[in-house]
Amino acid sequence: MSETIARITDYASVVRERHSVRQYDPNWTISEAELKEILAEASLAPSSSNTQSWRFFVFHDKELRKKLLPIANNQQQVVDASAVVAVLADREGFKRIGRINDIAVEKGLMPRDFADQYAERTVKIYGGLSQEKQTQIALVDGGLVSMQIMLSAKSRGFDTVPMGGFDAARLVEEFGIPDHLVPVMLIAIGRAAGPSRPTARLPLEEITYWNGEGL
Amino acid sequence: MSETIARITDYASVVRERHSVRQYDPNWTISEAELKEILAEASLAPSSSNTQSWRFFVFHDKELRKKLLPIANNQQQVVDASAVVAVLADREGFKRIGRINDIAVEKGLMPRDFADQYAERTVKIYGGLSQEKQTQIALVDGGLVSMQIMLSAKSRGFDTVPMGGFDAARLVEEFGIPDHLVPVMLIAIGRAAGPSRPTARLPLEEITYWNGEGL
Repeated sequence: MSETIARITDYASVVRERHSVRQYDPNWTISEAELKEILAEASLAPSSSNTQSWRFFVFHDKELRKKLLPIANNQQQVVDASAVVAVLADREGFKRIGRINDIAVEKGLMPRDFADQYAERTVKIYGGLSQEKQTQIALVDGGLVSMQIMLSAKSRGFDTVPMGGFDAARLVEEFGIPDHLVPVMLIAIGRAAGPSRPTARLPLEEITYWNGEGL
Repeated sequence: MSETIARITDYASVVRERHSVRQYDPNWTISEAELKEILAEASLAPSSSNTQSWRFFVFHDKELRKKLLPIANNQQQVVDASAVVAVLADREGFKRIGRINDIAVEKGLMPRDFADQYAERTVKIYGGLSQEKQTQIALVDGGLVSMQIMLSAKSRGFDTVPMGGFDAARLVEEFGIPDHLVPVMLIAIGRAAGPSRPTARLPLEEITYWNGEGL
């Protein structure tokens, strides 16, 4: 599309104006460059020991999204939005800490000795955890990066909707996703075809234990 | 403190300038009002079926944080920062969907019939999941809200550090946290005592499968 979308630069506005949008303009497209900008910015999120165990299966191609449609309970936004990002949690992601620390050393952010000890220690600690615990850590990190994907998209004028309602087993099978990559959520990204519906939030006092009070 | 902290209003700057800070000015304080602003804003995050299964144990009191210190591997930021938020994932959080939808009805965001059916269906579906799956869903949502806590703090000029390295079992025991509330992470919030160290990120092409390529 040649029409440009208005950016939202103000943080408070991005957070407040991000709503889950389920209706998208099917004629709108998002460029590979824009998607990469969003994903790279989102990846500035923190992660457990900086292991960055998030992986992105980007469904940009529309034909591929048609294959995804029945797996995602036929939610039309999968096809009508401009892209869908399947955020995956790599429960073996900690194995790449050596690579991450090598980059840090190259950039002068970390001394070599420290980098190597850190990597060795991380692989030892995370490798000794149960698969369930490894998965849980990677899922939390997947949540962190997913939030920034949605915000970074919004700041560029795109709307999103996170989807948990899909057949994870079929997703993995249909698209040949290896066993160590656990689906976190699908995020549709596109141009809203109508206004989003605001949703209610629990009052803060019902979800907060101030200095432990009310537990 | 009477000195004010400069806000960062620009979204791109908030995301780029948020770094994990481990050294804090112990003389700095954060008000209850500021903390509540941050948590309320963060709670605008999306969640699985809008169940908002995040709970916040706010360690504002310094004496309480001294009790937390040994549980958090004696990481000094627990005491030196101005507050620590223990983000908890309520794996039974879906049971509050009726309350959430009641608020939506009161605010005119949802018709009564729809609200009741939605709540009944959600409790049935989530209630039928394994405890492990319930936990995983709540942990992902905990990740989403945690990201916004860190960004919302940063936009107000506060620094943060997410901590996964703590003794979850001792935390639960020491502070009487019920079994259904699973610790996601601790987030220290305060005024940085020095510059933060930038960290390396994996190049996007090493974490992205474009239309499934490279899997």
